[in-house]
Amino acid sequence: MLALTILGNNSAIPAFDRNPTAQVLQTADESYLIDCGEGTQMQMTRYKIRRSKITRIFISHLHGDHYYGLIGLLTSMGLLGRTQDLHLHAPEPLDAILKLQLSVADTKLPFSLHFHPLRSEGIIVADKKLQVECFRVKHRIECWGFLFREKKNPRKVNAERAAIYEIPAAFYEKLQQGFDYVNKKGSIVPNEEVTTAAPKARSYAFCADTIYDESLAEKIKEVDLLYHEATYLKDLHERAAMRFHSTTHQAASIAKLGNVKKLLLGHFSSKYETLDAFLPEAKEVFENTELALEGTCYKV
Amino acid sequence: MLALTILGNNSAIPAFDRNPTAQVLQTADESYLIDCGEGTQMQMTRYKIRRSKITRIFISHLHGDHYYGLIGLLTSMGLLGRTQDLHLHAPEPLDAILKLQLSVADTKLPFSLHFHPLRSEGIIVADKKLQVECFRVKHRIECWGFLFREKKNPRKVNAERAAIYEIPAAFYEKLQQGFDYVNKKGSIVPNEEVTTAAPKARSYAFCADTIYDESLAEKIKEVDLLYHEATYLKDLHERAAMRFHSTTHQAASIAKLGNVKKLLLGHFSSKYETLDAFLPEAKEVFENTELALEGTCYKV
Repeated sequence: MLALTILGNNSAIPAFDRNPTAQVLQTADESYLIDCGEGTQMQMTRYKIRRSKITRIFISHLHGDHYYGLIGLLTSMGLLGRTQDLHLHAPEPLDAILKLQLSVADTKLPFSLHFHPLRSEGIIVADKKLQVECFRVKHRIECWGFLFREKKNPRKVNAERAAIYEIPAAFYEKLQQGFDYVNKKGSIVPNEEVTTAAPKARSYAFCADTIYDESLAEKIKEVDLLYHEATYLKDLHERAAMRFHSTTHQAASIAKLGNVKKLLLGHFSSKYETLDAFLPEAKEVFENTELALEGTCYKV
Repeated sequence: MLALTILGNNSAIPAFDRNPTAQVLQTADESYLIDCGEGTQMQMTRYKIRRSKITRIFISHLHGDHYYGLIGLLTSMGLLGRTQDLHLHAPEPLDAILKLQLSVADTKLPFSLHFHPLRSEGIIVADKKLQVECFRVKHRIECWGFLFREKKNPRKVNAERAAIYEIPAAFYEKLQQGFDYVNKKGSIVPNEEVTTAAPKARSYAFCADTIYDESLAEKIKEVDLLYHEATYLKDLHERAAMRFHSTTHQAASIAKLGNVKKLLLGHFSSKYETLDAFLPEAKEVFENTELALEGTCYKV
């Protein structure tokens, strides 16, 4: 299972107690931070996200509302004595910014920060249990989306039933992979007789800041949860296009085209004091939609 | 009159709802921002400090808890359409950091940002009503304190009384400066007969992050309000010295040596959940002390 906690859902300028973009994706073992707007470390404290659990940070692009909180978070991790490695996946120029800021402060982080510049679409993390791909999205500057996909889990062997069929333990790995067993007499034991299906592998796509772009639908096809920005309500589609952002209807259209399970809207413009109008508009196009609300944890 | 509003009073890591250093000094006409830790722009919203009123920003040093919020504030000022000039007084390397961050975001601020690097002690602002001096303090990296001093106001002419003595308006400027009037008959009208004293010129000294340093006392001598850091309680004087910070007793000693009117303590370590012990300790040495509390406005 994946769990996504929203730490910030606002665009550009913090307003109406809404903070700039930051999300934490928790897997069974690790936490990933996705974008890190100003104040993210304070939001982590508020919502009881442990800084020490974060193993990887993904930054979509270098507009301030997506990364100005990063240097503060890294500095605090250092001051708190972190020693565990940290991996940072981000547009290349961020490396020089961080190095400059650490150097003028005469600060050496007490942990290894591995900087992985985003250069081309494809797999950027292939852990035992999770794979992460990055893909380009269309914004005013270089900008990346991220697709998190649990690896397919092995089937679960029912050892008692396997014993009845006298299947040797050496064959269990094959059983987990779905193979049938053929015993000495040549008769077949169907895999389903001795195994149960693994929990479904889940997927989450984070689309960052993007203009309406139908080619996105293919990239995030059939994910369990899609986060798509909806900076504006539908009437402002011209402003959205001009600023390389999207509207409620556009986000919902991508969800529909991509046949995803569920849509999460975020990155709301500071011009809106309340968010009441966003959900009904999106639901006109794609029913299973929710708003990304700060402090809320969405189970995938 | 000067009014100082505290936006952040914590050191290093934000903790216990305390934010990193930021203060706003308001004069009759303008607002100055002193240091700008992460989240300062959110604190300005919370405490109703208008971003548009800020004309000058002073940054004491380039440890993150004193400037990580600056780039976000500047970006927001730009997004809100500011056109008015802004003056920034800060250690020289900050210029390159800001330029790099604006450049990777492809952002051009719609207002002129005048960067004034701090290079030597002395007067850095000489406005009509206020003068600002910077002075070096001893910290782990280059670090500056700031002394804000209202200019001596002219005496106020009582026009009715001046008329009785038949003093011509052309002489009023001399009266404001304190001169007596000598009439045609050669008799003297004492200045005090026709003028009243101006309101006293006020002064505020911000001592940034500093180790205990008695030479500071001379620099901030007899100011109306002294802000001095007290990162630690008195028992941790060794840790304070090692990290180039001060304790309650040390801050209060500087206030006493400098014969200031009032002392304000801040920059509290994140190791203290409550601040209860700070004030009594400081008062052991210097009675007229207060804690710098977030959202509180101290009249000078």
